[in-house]
Amino acid sequence: MAGAMQGMKVLDMTHVMAGPFCTRQLVLLGADVIKIERPGEGDVMRYYGHDPRFGRNSPNFVGYNAGKKSVALDWTTELGAEALRRLVAEADVIVENFRPGVLQARGFGYEACKAIKPDIIYCSISGYGQESILRDNPAYDHIAQAMSGLMSLQGTEQDPPMKVGFPLVDTFSGHMAAFAIVSALLRRAQTGEGQRLDVSMLDASMVLMSAMILKYNATGDVPKRVGNKGFSLSATADMFPTKDRPISIGANTDKQFAALCKVLGVEELVADPRYQDASGRWEHADTLRPVVSAKIAEWEAEVLEVELNKASVPAAVVRDLKGIVAHPHFEGRPTFQSIDVPAWGREMKVLNGGFIANEDTPQSTVTSPDLGEHTEEVLRSLGFEGEKLESLIAGAQLS
Amino acid sequence: MAGAMQGMKVLDMTHVMAGPFCTRQLVLLGADVIKIERPGEGDVMRYYGHDPRFGRNSPNFVGYNAGKKSVALDWTTELGAEALRRLVAEADVIVENFRPGVLQARGFGYEACKAIKPDIIYCSISGYGQESILRDNPAYDHIAQAMSGLMSLQGTEQDPPMKVGFPLVDTFSGHMAAFAIVSALLRRAQTGEGQRLDVSMLDASMVLMSAMILKYNATGDVPKRVGNKGFSLSATADMFPTKDRPISIGANTDKQFAALCKVLGVEELVADPRYQDASGRWEHADTLRPVVSAKIAEWEAEVLEVELNKASVPAAVVRDLKGIVAHPHFEGRPTFQSIDVPAWGREMKVLNGGFIANEDTPQSTVTSPDLGEHTEEVLRSLGFEGEKLESLIAGAQLS
Repeated sequence: MAGAMQGMKVLDMTHVMAGPFCTRQLVLLGADVIKIERPGEGDVMRYYGHDPRFGRNSPNFVGYNAGKKSVALDWTTELGAEALRRLVAEADVIVENFRPGVLQARGFGYEACKAIKPDIIYCSISGYGQESILRDNPAYDHIAQAMSGLMSLQGTEQDPPMKVGFPLVDTFSGHMAAFAIVSALLRRAQTGEGQRLDVSMLDASMVLMSAMILKYNATGDVPKRVGNKGFSLSATADMFPTKDRPISIGANTDKQFAALCKVLGVEELVADPRYQDASGRWEHADTLRPVVSAKIAEWEAEVLEVELNKASVPAAVVRDLKGIVAHPHFEGRPTFQSIDVPAWGREMKVLNGGFIANEDTPQSTVTSPDLGEHTEEVLRSLGFEGEKLESLIAGAQLS
Repeated sequence: MAGAMQGMKVLDMTHVMAGPFCTRQLVLLGADVIKIERPGEGDVMRYYGHDPRFGRNSPNFVGYNAGKKSVALDWTTELGAEALRRLVAEADVIVENFRPGVLQARGFGYEACKAIKPDIIYCSISGYGQESILRDNPAYDHIAQAMSGLMSLQGTEQDPPMKVGFPLVDTFSGHMAAFAIVSALLRRAQTGEGQRLDVSMLDASMVLMSAMILKYNATGDVPKRVGNKGFSLSATADMFPTKDRPISIGANTDKQFAALCKVLGVEELVADPRYQDASGRWEHADTLRPVVSAKIAEWEAEVLEVELNKASVPAAVVRDLKGIVAHPHFEGRPTFQSIDVPAWGREMKVLNGGFIANEDTPQSTVTSPDLGEHTEEVLRSLGFEGEKLESLIAGAQLS
């Protein structure tokens, strides 16, 4: 038994989010990921939130970097560059998220690395791509959300543009990079060839919004914002208030509508000629909605959730993170993984890969590295010793 | 030269969105994807929007299914089941998104398929997973957004919960399934073993929201909603009104803040002791924000976007889909792909894989299939002929 990337080496020259999220997925497949950090500070994500409880191991740093090794290395020095070249020579995959052109200018672009390791898979993650006319523009997640049109899609027609409330584009771009890398490894297994991969936050956003882009491309109509309505735009696919908390319901088909009416005790609606099919219900939403909403408002959300699901009507209470993380659904599943965080003196639950396999489900119980924790171990394994080793280690301890 | 999945066969028993989006990614890697559709109606996504201009080839159907073959097959008949078994025998990968247990009950669960094809990779996509206590609950994207806590993250503290305005969870779950499948193929290339993969919308949502879940898991604090603020929560990382359209800016570091002030002509702020570092700017946001906002409001958004990016301050006009799809960034890039849609008598731009490789970038110029377009061709290739073939074809033409 073995993970898909067991025994493979990833040289991780990324920081903050999309890159580390990408290489975290590779850890979960069994890869040996070596994270290169700047001596002294390391990845700025270490300090995210500047919470004294967490020091230089913020929860997000821990979650994105668990299972990796950290090597503190100033590879802009001659000796540091030699160490980096030896790391390249041993790597199956390099991932980097510097600004386009930076690594190339410093002698570690794709061609240079390919000369060292002919079948290298070299993946760059950036805001706009390595060859874009926008390549020099800096980017953060919320900038990509503005640029890509993503912010224009949340809320109702009356609301201002509203971003997705978490770093969606960073996360998805990182996931796309992991997909690109594993695809390239599969191709290499057949052809023996490496590949240069170019992932951008802007292009990834387009794929993520496929559903809306496809409609727009075909019709030329800029999509109207639909608030909490389901993608079907059915009259009874929306969020509704109850006695306590809001609930989302998705009664699209005739069968689901009939079941909804039965649970709510308004079966007379099913026989009403106006509501015979989805288009009738859509056309007469202004008469249908108030009746249905009033009935839903008589329930407690969790009770209605159970009853509707029993009747095969898709429904879920609108939960917050506290509500879902504590849900018994996750008991015994590998979604979360408790790991020790020695720097905090306690455990934390991080995310595994998010899917289950009958064998070798992507997962890892290893914690995140302290800055430079593996510098000496890795340098020794690369053959450094004596003065050179001491010099590299001294450089790694700068602060 | 070859895509990662060149020559591999995927038996696609999915419909609507997450499944077809997944197998579309496999098409783009070069896989031969055979989509099984119910005779008569086929995939309900064909009719999405019920727009007479598009008939049974809605833009979303076209975009998710371009490059696949369609076989109309009633595999609940004895002869249809025989055809499906022959398809399983030739497949590298099976993807399905029926309700958990449905295919197993009908003789096409993982174990049954593995008995036919020992190294099969069998991927199921569902709302809550194959073994979850919630496995029998039906799900749509907006239900998963409610259940997972995702809806709780958009907007400001004063707003009601707000879903992401496009089928995000469907899309990401489909992408995760594609990642799982390619990982399993890489593992098979080394071990010779197949795998059973279980992707759920709820668990995928947790991974997608990692950034927020990690903070919550470490602190127990349910995240406050931050409106359009960047993930850094810097005082100058937010959306701002201009003369014409809103712009998002991300000035987090001291350097970015200084550059922002220079462009806006308020360099005196840089010397102000209150605004010396990120925490000072955060603490004094109530005095800083009005000055900066007032200056931004004097600009035209597109002009300011150019000037800020020139000064290395991340910034983007808040565009809608029309604004971004027409952006010259995409000229000459493989992000979009024009394909013929014979059913409409014109072309349409669909999405490719979203990343670029130096060789074999994931892409396809092939259009989507008409319902059952490849039934006869595929059945013949499976060895059916004479009466059996005629009977299967007759069954496929039911409507």
